[in-house]
Amino acid sequence: MALIVQKYGGTSVGSVERIEQVAEKVVRWRERGDDVVVVVSAMSGETNRLINLAKSIHGRPAPRELDVLMSTGEQVTIALLSIALEKRGCAARSYTGGQVHILTDSAHNKARIRAIDDQRVRGDLNLGRVVVVAGFQGVDELGNITTLGRGGSDTTAVALAAAMKADECQIYTDVDGVYTTDPRVVPQARRLDRITFEEMMEMASLGSKVLQIRSVEFAGKYNVPLRVLSSFEDGPGTLITYEEEGMEEALISGIAFNRDEAQLTILGVPDQPGVAYKILGPISDSNIEVDMIVQNIAQDGSTTDFTFTVHRNDFQRALELLNRTSSELGAREVRGNETLVKISLVGVGMRSHAGIASTMFKTLANEGINIRMISTSEIKISVVVDEKYLELGVRALHEAFELNKTH
Amino acid sequence: MALIVQKYGGTSVGSVERIEQVAEKVVRWRERGDDVVVVVSAMSGETNRLINLAKSIHGRPAPRELDVLMSTGEQVTIALLSIALEKRGCAARSYTGGQVHILTDSAHNKARIRAIDDQRVRGDLNLGRVVVVAGFQGVDELGNITTLGRGGSDTTAVALAAAMKADECQIYTDVDGVYTTDPRVVPQARRLDRITFEEMMEMASLGSKVLQIRSVEFAGKYNVPLRVLSSFEDGPGTLITYEEEGMEEALISGIAFNRDEAQLTILGVPDQPGVAYKILGPISDSNIEVDMIVQNIAQDGSTTDFTFTVHRNDFQRALELLNRTSSELGAREVRGNETLVKISLVGVGMRSHAGIASTMFKTLANEGINIRMISTSEIKISVVVDEKYLELGVRALHEAFELNKTH
Repeated sequence: MALIVQKYGGTSVGSVERIEQVAEKVVRWRERGDDVVVVVSAMSGETNRLINLAKSIHGRPAPRELDVLMSTGEQVTIALLSIALEKRGCAARSYTGGQVHILTDSAHNKARIRAIDDQRVRGDLNLGRVVVVAGFQGVDELGNITTLGRGGSDTTAVALAAAMKADECQIYTDVDGVYTTDPRVVPQARRLDRITFEEMMEMASLGSKVLQIRSVEFAGKYNVPLRVLSSFEDGPGTLITYEEEGMEEALISGIAFNRDEAQLTILGVPDQPGVAYKILGPISDSNIEVDMIVQNIAQDGSTTDFTFTVHRNDFQRALELLNRTSSELGAREVRGNETLVKISLVGVGMRSHAGIASTMFKTLANEGINIRMISTSEIKISVVVDEKYLELGVRALHEAFELNKTH
Repeated sequence: MALIVQKYGGTSVGSVERIEQVAEKVVRWRERGDDVVVVVSAMSGETNRLINLAKSIHGRPAPRELDVLMSTGEQVTIALLSIALEKRGCAARSYTGGQVHILTDSAHNKARIRAIDDQRVRGDLNLGRVVVVAGFQGVDELGNITTLGRGGSDTTAVALAAAMKADECQIYTDVDGVYTTDPRVVPQARRLDRITFEEMMEMASLGSKVLQIRSVEFAGKYNVPLRVLSSFEDGPGTLITYEEEGMEEALISGIAFNRDEAQLTILGVPDQPGVAYKILGPISDSNIEVDMIVQNIAQDGSTTDFTFTVHRNDFQRALELLNRTSSELGAREVRGNETLVKISLVGVGMRSHAGIASTMFKTLANEGINIRMISTSEIKISVVVDEKYLELGVRALHEAFELNKTH
């Protein structure tokens, strides 16, 4: 008998009919003999409806009151799901974040979980009940209602699973698992049976928006086996775990990409300590997020070239800031390009296998694709190319690394 | 500096615009220097919307889960009102029933308040904040969310006012006070400046649905001065208090009436102990509420006549039950009349003034109105008459007792 924590997002509980379907699914797990804790989000659209109500009163509502308001969204869902479960003869109990005592810090609208008291949940499980917990919310030490920020329901589920040492944390979404790449770009893209936490982190942050990055991080930290499944179809989904010895390892797990890259280069900057800070300080002070950063030594030996990428929406602002910095530093030139994309190979197999990068570069070269920037980490190689090459590049790499085949 | 507890019902907070109007009103009280605690209901229609969601899943949803669901209605309002107050530079804090710790028994959907911990509210008031509390809800000893049943927000306000020894509990409604009678029947009806708890109880239970009877009872028990005012217009409203010595006493405070009376009479029942129970037992077992009860000794001395009234909707069922009882008891006859109304004079002045009843009967006789039943209490005289005489009777009595004039 296993202990399973399941999480159903807003789309999965978007209507009374869908809530009934979720109840059916939960009942089937119960009938297998498993203990089930269910974490749910607000019905899709509800959180936005509530925020709009608040904003129609005040453009910047008090964060504490916004949390009081938004947390009602999940509270509605837990009650409705519990009612749907009891209708099916399945004993159930609903709990708000405060009731199950998900203790957070006091950072309203973006709180972080500090501790979970699982006593009450265990008591109910022992009585044969399904426990339904409101995702996305908690209470601080003073009993104020807090929310974890968008997507926080995933984090609630993982934190509960960690606190209760659950056998598995299942995240039900509108896709049936994690794919080798986006099937809309590569029809041969294949659902992965397994992927490691590290790979998933790289995939998620690179634009495969299946799971909230924070929840993957959390699951990895507490070693909670995480499974992504479809709310609407049956199937095994994708299991996210630590690399296991003896586990046959794929060289590359997947190809992530990001369509909205823009690149900025400042050329001929004096090569002296603190120059990177002088260039990037004004950018981050303006709340522009910088993605890749590359610095080369320029040919003359005394100056350097500095290149970084930002989201395309931030390109114009970043360019203005960089021009200002360029004058101050006496740099030679500033260049920008806002029609770029990033393609990344991700795989823990890179750790032990050489030659991946060269295969990648050769594949792209064979297709006539010019690489404008390269950045690597232990389990990832990212390249920036012109946006017109995105589909061609991803398809060529998918084929070159035989991602359509099970290894 | 007074401590005022204000309660705004569903219509008063029925839209964002109305919530802003309530905020304006609250700010004006704060500017007078008073401490203000505000109790709010769910936005009008919201509670029904939530119940319908639950019922679309299950005809008889678990009462515990229904409370989890319904309590979100008030939670939305407290957040929105607090946001509207802070927008106006008025510091505010919202609390759910559980947070302010309104402790109730565990009777879901109709819980009763056991205790209130006002520590947190006092702390906020001392910091100059307005405290906004969700009406209608509380928590039981295990921390389960409970609701007090329909109209429970009035009770929350009065209970808070009692716990905090507030100077006044103000109930804002869509009428501007308690009237001598229904202005739709008697255009000369006059708003009362004051009325006693006892009179208000009689007026409320007799169909002047301004306040929840339970909250009046509660206010009387804990001696909380209660004021009914309009949410939409300014004005003093009606103050409900205990009779004060030296207070110039009106003979009659008002005329209540009830349009939906039906009368049943069983004639020639053997006059023996337990007969009243034999007659009314089956009626109350069928959950039919009996209003007035009158028993006369019949002319022959050994049998009695027994008359009572029920709501018109229950007339047919009550008649069937009574016919069955009649056969069992060997009574002579059963009679029924379902086109009756009840008119009641209410006034604490009756205690010390004789002749009220005879003036009432004479007034009705002068109009040719036949009285079918009479029942009296210490501060009330009720008569049952044919429904066609309702308006005529109420107007004649209103004039006879000079209720249009201030005494």
